[in-house]
Amino acid sequence: MKVLPFLEIIREELSKVEELILSESSLSYKPLAESVEAILKSGGKRLRPALTILASKLYPADSERAIIAAAAMELLHAATLIHDDFIDQSSTRRGIPTLNSLWPPAAVVLAGDHLFARAASLAAMTGSPRVVKIFAQALKTICDGEIRQLFGAFGWPQDQEDYYYRIYAKTSSLFEASAEIGGVLSDAPEEAIQALKEYGKNLGNAFQIIDDVLDFTGDEETMGKPTGSDLRQGVVTLPVFYFVESGGDESLIVKALKARPEERETALRELVEKIRNSSAINLSVKEAMNFVEKAKEAISFLPQNQYRSALRALADFAVERNY
Amino acid sequence: MKVLPFLEIIREELSKVEELILSESSLSYKPLAESVEAILKSGGKRLRPALTILASKLYPADSERAIIAAAAMELLHAATLIHDDFIDQSSTRRGIPTLNSLWPPAAVVLAGDHLFARAASLAAMTGSPRVVKIFAQALKTICDGEIRQLFGAFGWPQDQEDYYYRIYAKTSSLFEASAEIGGVLSDAPEEAIQALKEYGKNLGNAFQIIDDVLDFTGDEETMGKPTGSDLRQGVVTLPVFYFVESGGDESLIVKALKARPEERETALRELVEKIRNSSAINLSVKEAMNFVEKAKEAISFLPQNQYRSALRALADFAVERNY
Repeated sequence: MKVLPFLEIIREELSKVEELILSESSLSYKPLAESVEAILKSGGKRLRPALTILASKLYPADSERAIIAAAAMELLHAATLIHDDFIDQSSTRRGIPTLNSLWPPAAVVLAGDHLFARAASLAAMTGSPRVVKIFAQALKTICDGEIRQLFGAFGWPQDQEDYYYRIYAKTSSLFEASAEIGGVLSDAPEEAIQALKEYGKNLGNAFQIIDDVLDFTGDEETMGKPTGSDLRQGVVTLPVFYFVESGGDESLIVKALKARPEERETALRELVEKIRNSSAINLSVKEAMNFVEKAKEAISFLPQNQYRSALRALADFAVERNY
Repeated sequence: MKVLPFLEIIREELSKVEELILSESSLSYKPLAESVEAILKSGGKRLRPALTILASKLYPADSERAIIAAAAMELLHAATLIHDDFIDQSSTRRGIPTLNSLWPPAAVVLAGDHLFARAASLAAMTGSPRVVKIFAQALKTICDGEIRQLFGAFGWPQDQEDYYYRIYAKTSSLFEASAEIGGVLSDAPEEAIQALKEYGKNLGNAFQIIDDVLDFTGDEETMGKPTGSDLRQGVVTLPVFYFVESGGDESLIVKALKARPEERETALRELVEKIRNSSAINLSVKEAMNFVEKAKEAISFLPQNQYRSALRALADFAVERNY
């Protein structure tokens, strides 16, 4: 199994998580089970499980339960991606075909539900009501964020506050929950749990902002999806706000969001090109870096050991991807 | 609030369940929240919550937790109905428009997910890992049943065993879980919990068989959906098996399932009419009654009190609906 260099110290735990994630699916329709398995295997970096495991290691931990919780978080993440791709009608993710490009809607919805169920089942297996509560709350937040994004799409002007709520709901809430759960399962002191939560939230923000930047600057092949895909879904992200703030032409945005279909794609490509070459990219990256610093700051009073170092490295990694 | 006569003894608890079910939704998009609320209010009989409450009362119980769990079971049920109606593309349920007839697919999927999340959150609030485990297992079973039904649809010949698995997965598993959870939360002895589980499963079987009978014999207006809707979805139910067993013409079934669309509806109506007037209906009802007897038998050694009497009445009610 490939793991990021700074996660070598938890390689053993991550392999066990992997086993749990891929353990025999209770999906009784084989071909669909195989498609789901292909998605589970398609190279996610397992950042959320890593977060849970690392967070659980800062204090003397029961690693069995942390491994189970870590697998739950990854399956919850996978379930939301399946429903997301269906909602966005995306055709590829991580370079492989999405479930909705292979199966009818009914099968896609059920496959997602099935992964929710498996995730909830694992969360329950930790035996910790607090863990299940955090898990359920994260799921609620993710759904609500999706719903807001869906009904807020294609609107302009938009509120930057709303952007931060959306990225929290979509990404940071699950990072936050993953870190918090690790803390809870290691019986860390309450203030350490809160610090891990804060770390996770800020890490998630940084991570999502870089994702949003990469949607403008990324290489289509590496990303496995065309650039500008957020705007194509009507979703406005941080670089767009910075583009306007630094004097960019707002009418381009209106056109890219609201023009008639035959004109939209051209307007969209023009806007993506303009933003890519504007200061909006650097400003966004800087903002992500601020969140990385906040994440590190949050855990600065926790025990200084190799796991805390790995959490710091994970924070740096969030912004070190190519942009 | 209207409650069934034999549930008067738990009216107070059921009102509290109702409050929890309808308590402020965290769905931040108001119009969708209102549609979901309309569905939650649209006159389900709250049989699953009643089951949890009654089961929790046989022994000295902490009714607060049973109420929370009961609400969780009803919300889980509602969530599966929303995804079901989407999958089946049903246009009405209980006489009101389904969510999928009012909203785009994305909103429907997310509304269902949102109810799953609320249900899981309530399950977690019971503070009982065993309850959450039962809850998650029921969700897994329901999904798997749906998936089997989806991919097994329109097939003939079919296995009667498979029918029993499907109704277990679709209905009985949730009845079983609702009863089991009630027992768990009242700290009933383990053999009483197992008895309640057995009761719930048999009750669910009886209930679903009658539902399947009503799909042939029911009045379209009362049912809020056209007769023969299962066959229209390619789903073969118990009366169809009995129709064949008692010498009915199998070629009619093949035609009703596999004919070209323009001929299918006629074939289907003919088959529904034939089955409705055949002994298959009585044989199916008799089978449902057998399950009612098994349900009552299962709880015959439990404390003889008004709650056990209500459970017996509930079992009778399952087959006393019009058929």
